[in-house]
Amino acid sequence: MIMSESTIKLKQVRIADPFWFRVRDTVRREGIPYQWKALNDEIPGAVPSRCMRNFRIAAGKETGEHAGFVFQDSDIAKWIEGAAYSLRWHPDPELEKIVDGAIEEVVAAQQPDGYLDTYYIINGLDKRWTNLRDNHELYCAGHMIEAAVAYYLVTGKRVLLDAMIRFVDHIDSVLGPEDGKLRGYPGHPVIEMALMKLYQVTGDPKHLNLARYFVNQRGQSPLFFEVEGERNHNDFYWKDSFFHYQYYQAAEPVREQADAVGHAVRAMYLYSGMADVARETGDVSLADACRRLWRSVVSRRMYVTGAIGSSEYGEAFTFDYDLPNDTVYGETCAAIGLVFFARRMLSLEPKSEYADVMERALYNGVISGMQLDGRSFFYVNPLEVLPEASLKDHGKQHVKVERQKWFGCACCPPNIIRLVSSLEDYIASVRDDALYLHLYVGGDLEASVGGRDVLLKTQTDYPWDGSISMTVDPGEPVSFTLNLRVPAWCSSWTLKLNGEPVTPDIADGYLSLSRLWNPGDRLEFSLDMPVSFLSANPRIPEDAGKAVLSRGPLVYCLEEADNGNHLHLIRLGSVRPEECKTEWKPEKLGGIVEISTPGLRESDEGWGDTLYSAEKQIDAAPAVLTWIPYYAWANRGPGEMRVWIRK
Amino acid sequence: MIMSESTIKLKQVRIADPFWFRVRDTVRREGIPYQWKALNDEIPGAVPSRCMRNFRIAAGKETGEHAGFVFQDSDIAKWIEGAAYSLRWHPDPELEKIVDGAIEEVVAAQQPDGYLDTYYIINGLDKRWTNLRDNHELYCAGHMIEAAVAYYLVTGKRVLLDAMIRFVDHIDSVLGPEDGKLRGYPGHPVIEMALMKLYQVTGDPKHLNLARYFVNQRGQSPLFFEVEGERNHNDFYWKDSFFHYQYYQAAEPVREQADAVGHAVRAMYLYSGMADVARETGDVSLADACRRLWRSVVSRRMYVTGAIGSSEYGEAFTFDYDLPNDTVYGETCAAIGLVFFARRMLSLEPKSEYADVMERALYNGVISGMQLDGRSFFYVNPLEVLPEASLKDHGKQHVKVERQKWFGCACCPPNIIRLVSSLEDYIASVRDDALYLHLYVGGDLEASVGGRDVLLKTQTDYPWDGSISMTVDPGEPVSFTLNLRVPAWCSSWTLKLNGEPVTPDIADGYLSLSRLWNPGDRLEFSLDMPVSFLSANPRIPEDAGKAVLSRGPLVYCLEEADNGNHLHLIRLGSVRPEECKTEWKPEKLGGIVEISTPGLRESDEGWGDTLYSAEKQIDAAPAVLTWIPYYAWANRGPGEMRVWIRK
Repeated sequence: MIMSESTIKLKQVRIADPFWFRVRDTVRREGIPYQWKALNDEIPGAVPSRCMRNFRIAAGKETGEHAGFVFQDSDIAKWIEGAAYSLRWHPDPELEKIVDGAIEEVVAAQQPDGYLDTYYIINGLDKRWTNLRDNHELYCAGHMIEAAVAYYLVTGKRVLLDAMIRFVDHIDSVLGPEDGKLRGYPGHPVIEMALMKLYQVTGDPKHLNLARYFVNQRGQSPLFFEVEGERNHNDFYWKDSFFHYQYYQAAEPVREQADAVGHAVRAMYLYSGMADVARETGDVSLADACRRLWRSVVSRRMYVTGAIGSSEYGEAFTFDYDLPNDTVYGETCAAIGLVFFARRMLSLEPKSEYADVMERALYNGVISGMQLDGRSFFYVNPLEVLPEASLKDHGKQHVKVERQKWFGCACCPPNIIRLVSSLEDYIASVRDDALYLHLYVGGDLEASVGGRDVLLKTQTDYPWDGSISMTVDPGEPVSFTLNLRVPAWCSSWTLKLNGEPVTPDIADGYLSLSRLWNPGDRLEFSLDMPVSFLSANPRIPEDAGKAVLSRGPLVYCLEEADNGNHLHLIRLGSVRPEECKTEWKPEKLGGIVEISTPGLRESDEGWGDTLYSAEKQIDAAPAVLTWIPYYAWANRGPGEMRVWIRK
Repeated sequence: MIMSESTIKLKQVRIADPFWFRVRDTVRREGIPYQWKALNDEIPGAVPSRCMRNFRIAAGKETGEHAGFVFQDSDIAKWIEGAAYSLRWHPDPELEKIVDGAIEEVVAAQQPDGYLDTYYIINGLDKRWTNLRDNHELYCAGHMIEAAVAYYLVTGKRVLLDAMIRFVDHIDSVLGPEDGKLRGYPGHPVIEMALMKLYQVTGDPKHLNLARYFVNQRGQSPLFFEVEGERNHNDFYWKDSFFHYQYYQAAEPVREQADAVGHAVRAMYLYSGMADVARETGDVSLADACRRLWRSVVSRRMYVTGAIGSSEYGEAFTFDYDLPNDTVYGETCAAIGLVFFARRMLSLEPKSEYADVMERALYNGVISGMQLDGRSFFYVNPLEVLPEASLKDHGKQHVKVERQKWFGCACCPPNIIRLVSSLEDYIASVRDDALYLHLYVGGDLEASVGGRDVLLKTQTDYPWDGSISMTVDPGEPVSFTLNLRVPAWCSSWTLKLNGEPVTPDIADGYLSLSRLWNPGDRLEFSLDMPVSFLSANPRIPEDAGKAVLSRGPLVYCLEEADNGNHLHLIRLGSVRPEECKTEWKPEKLGGIVEISTPGLRESDEGWGDTLYSAEKQIDAAPAVLTWIPYYAWANRGPGEMRVWIRK
C-alpha cells in the first residue's frame, strides 16, 4: 500500500541544535564562501574549477575552451541549491546577491530553444544528445532544476526556475517514448528526483511524466545506450569490464534489478528518483523494486559508517558482504545519496529502519567528508588508514590521509553543503493525522497535522546525550498521533508524558502516541546511550573477529594522535561496560564526547629480523584506548586510523 | 671475507627423491613438450606465443610482423635452458634433436655483427639500443646466454654458445665505460648472472668485466635511463608514478640501495648478479649491499610461502611489513628469483638462513606455480582467495582462482621448468675442504672434497618425513668436513654416526662433522617434524591475530574442497599438539601428507538482514580442519583458499 506523504512545507523547521549548528554554521560561514571562490578559481593551490568561466564563455562574454569535466556545470548548481538552503535558515542579503549574480551568469548561457549545458554550447550544439550514457547533459540539467526549485521556494525568485522549465520543455521535445524522439535516459541519474521536485512546485504532469518515463525506460530492450553508442560511434569505457551497462544501473529494467550494482552515486540517485515516482504514482511494482534494492544496499553492501561503494574501480558496489575497510571507496556523495534514498523510502512508508540508515550515514559517513573548519574535503571515506600505504601501495592511492582543498571532479564538497544546509527536510514528516519524528535535532518544528498547525519544540544534546525534551503546542487541544522513532541502536528507553511514564505501542519502529494534545504538553524521551561494541554480520570476511565501538548514532574510531601508531596491534580484550568512560571534551575536535576503554596492545618487541616463527610469543599488555567519533578523524594531521578493532 | 666456492660440477648429482621425482618427471614428460608446443602456437585455446615464428621471420624464412612482447625471445631461451637440464638427468635423443632444431632456428636469425633480438631485427636495426630501459634487448640476450651455457655443459654442443659469445662481443662493443660507448645497462637484469655463467665456461675476463660494469654502472649519475629517454624521446610509463627509476632498481647505485624496491623479478635477478660478481671479485662493498638487500627482502618483505612482490602495480615490492594475502602479486618468477638469490648468497657465505629461504620458496611459492599435471600455471600466487572477489573486485582480478594454460607474457612457465630441472645445482656445495648439504633430497652426489671424489648417497622421504639416511663413500679414508644444515623450522633433531649418537658443533646453522671419513660411514639424521603453527612478526598488519600451519618446510592451507566455503569463519582455537593428525594420502593431490586439526567454525546463522549488531552473538562450534600443502592448492576446481587463519 502506497500513500502520499504531505511534505512539511519549507520554512517550517528551525534547527537550534548544538551539534548541527556547528556543522551548518561552518558550512554557512566557511564552506559556501570558500566554494564560491573555488568555482571562480580563486583558491590558491587548489585545482581550478573553471565552472563559472565555462558559463561566461558559453554566454559569449569571454572566449576560450570548455574546461574541466563534462559535468562541470553541476558544481554551481549544487552550490546554488546549498546556498538557497542556507538562506532559508540564515537570511543573508549579501549571499543572496551573489547567488542572484550566479544565476544571471548561468541563465545568460541558455540557448533560445531552452538548452543549457556549457560543454555542448562551447563545443558545438550539433553534438548535443549524442552521448546520454556518458556526457551528463541530463545530470547537469537535473542538478540545475534542483537548484532552481530550492531557490524559488526560499526566495520566491523565478529566474532560474523559469529557465529550467524552458529547459525541461526542450528536453521533453527531444527525449521520450513518442515517435521521432530519442528513447534516452540519463547515464547519471538525478534528473528523476529533480523533476519530481519541480512537479511539486509546478503541478505540471509533464514533469511527473518525464521523470516516470526516465525510470521506466531505463534498461529496456533494445538498450538505448547500445543503440546510441553504435549510431554515434561513442567509445565505451566499460566494454571489456565486467561492468558493462551495470555500471549505469541500465543492464536491466529497474523492476528486474535484484542487487545494488555499479557506480554507487548513480545507484542512489536512481533509486531515490524511483522512490519519488513510486510514492507519487502509487506504483506498487516500482515500490517493490525500491525495497529490494534498499535491502541489497543496507543488508549486504553498506559499511557501518553508512559508506557505500566497496571499490575504487568504477566508484562502485562489488558483491555481497565485500566490505574491505582499507581499499573502500565510500564516496561522500554516495553516503549523501543513501540519505536521499532513505528519506524517500521514509516518505514511501514510515518505517524506522530507513531513518536508522539515514541517521547512520548523516552522523558518520557524510560529515566525515568535510574538515571541521569546512575548508577541505574527503572524496573517499576509509575505515582504516595507514599513511604509508596511501603513498606506496597503488591499490590504496585513492585513500587520502588528509582532506583535500578541492578536486578536479568536485562533486562531493557542494553536495555536503546542500545536504547539511537542508537538514530541516530530514527530521520529520507528516502523514495523514500523524507526525513522525525521524531524527532528534534540537529546534522548533511547525507542521500541519490533524487540520491544525502544531508547534513542536525539541531540546536535546543529541548525539552526545540521549535525553530529548519536547513540548507540543497545537494552539488549542487537537487529536493527532505523534510517532517517535526508537533508534535501532537503542535497546532501552523511557518516555514521560507531562512527568508520567508512558509505554506506547511501537509500530514500524515508532512509539505511537495517539491522543488529544494540549498546549504545553511535555515529553521527556530518554534513550539509553551506552558505549557498545558492534560486531559485523559473520558473512563479512573483512570484519571477522573484530568489533567497532559505537555510542548512540555515532561510530567511533582509534586515531594515531591518541593511541600511537601500529593500531593493528590493538585488541579489545574483554571489556566490562563499567570500564568504558565517556567525557565531554569541549575543546577537542570541535567538541566531542571522547570515550576511553581498557584494551590490550600486543608487543612487537623481540622479533628482530624474524618474519615467521612457531616459537615466539606475542605478548599483550593492558592499554587505555582513546576513541573519537569517526566523523572527526583526520583533523590533526596525517596518521593511522582504524574503525574495526580485533576483539 | 669473501671466498670463492668451487661449484660442484654438473652431472655429479643424481636425484632419486619421490617428492621431486614427481615434479621433475612431470616437467620432463608434460611441461617441456607442452611448452614447446606453446612456443610454436600449437596449444588449442591458449594465448598464441609467436615466439618461434618471430625467429623465422627475423631469419627471413617467413614474412610477417613481430608478435608478442618485446621480450618474447626469452621464452625459447628459458625453454632451451630447461630442456638442457632435463637432458642432464634424463637423456632423450628425441628431445635433444628438437632442441638442436630450436637452436638452429634461433641462430639463423643472428646478424652478421652478432646481434640477435627478433624485435629489432624485424622492426629495424637502426632502432636497436635506443631503449635499454624498457625494450629488453639485454634481458633476452641474458636468457639466451644462460641457455647456451647450460646446453653446452650438458651436451658439449657449442652452436648456441659460440653464437652468444659473438653476441656478447657485439654488446661489449656498444655498451661500456669507454668513450664512444653507451653507458647503458639493462632495464631488466639477468645478463649479469648470465655473463658470470659464461665466464665460468670461457674464463674470458671480458665476460666478467661486462657483468661487473652492468652492476656498477646501474643508478650512477647522470642516470643513463634519463639521458637515453631524453635523447630518444622514449615514453616513460612511470613518469607520474612513485616508482620512477625505483621500478628498475636504478634510482641509486646498487651499493646505496637500502631496500628491495620496484619490480620484484628484476630485483631478484639484479641481486643475484650482484652476488655472483661479489663472490667472483671479492668485492666487499658489493657483498655488503647484497646482504642489506637480502635482509630487506627476507626480514620485512617476504610472504611465508617465499612469495615476494606485494602489489600487482608494477609487480612490485611496496613497503616494510606490507604483506596483504588477497591482493598479493607473488609472481612465480619472483619466488624463483629469490631461489637464485639465495643460492648465490650461499655461495658467497654458507649460512643456513639462505638455504632456509631457498627451501621455503622452492617447496611452497615456486612449485605452487604449476598444476600437478604440469599443464597450467599461476603467474600470481595468492595466500587467500575468494573466487567471487577475483571476478567482481577489480583490485583482485589479477588473482586467478585456477592456473592458466598460457600467458601473453609467459615468463613463469619456462622459468619453473628450468629451475626444477636444475634442482641438482641447489642441493649442496663444496668450499675448500668442506661439503655443505643445503637441501635434503634423496639421491647420489659426487663431489671433489679434500682432494678426493666423495660419493654421498641420501635416502629420505623428505619433506613428508624428517628421517634422512646418508652413506659416505670416499673410496678410501679421507679427511673433510661434512656440514649438514639444521633447518630453521626444526627445533629438535638427532644425529647418529654409524649408529652412535653424535652432537657436533653448529656453525652458521650447519652441523659440522670434521673427521676422517671411511667408505660406508653411515649417518642417520632425524629432524623432528611436528605440526606447528607459525605466527607472523607483529609488524605485519595483515596477519595480526592469525597463524599458519606448517610442517617441515611445507606451508599448509585450507581449501574449500576439504573445509566448505566461508573459510574466514574458521578459527584455530586452542589446539594441543597431540590433537593434530598427519596421514599419508597417496592418492590425493599426487600424494601428500594431509593434516587434520581441531578448530572452530563460527556460525553465520541468525543474522538475517542485520549487518551490524551489539547484541547478536557469534557462536563457534568445534570443527575438524583438513589442511593440504599450499603448493597443491587449486588442483580440484575453483574454490576458496586461505593460508593465514584466525587464532
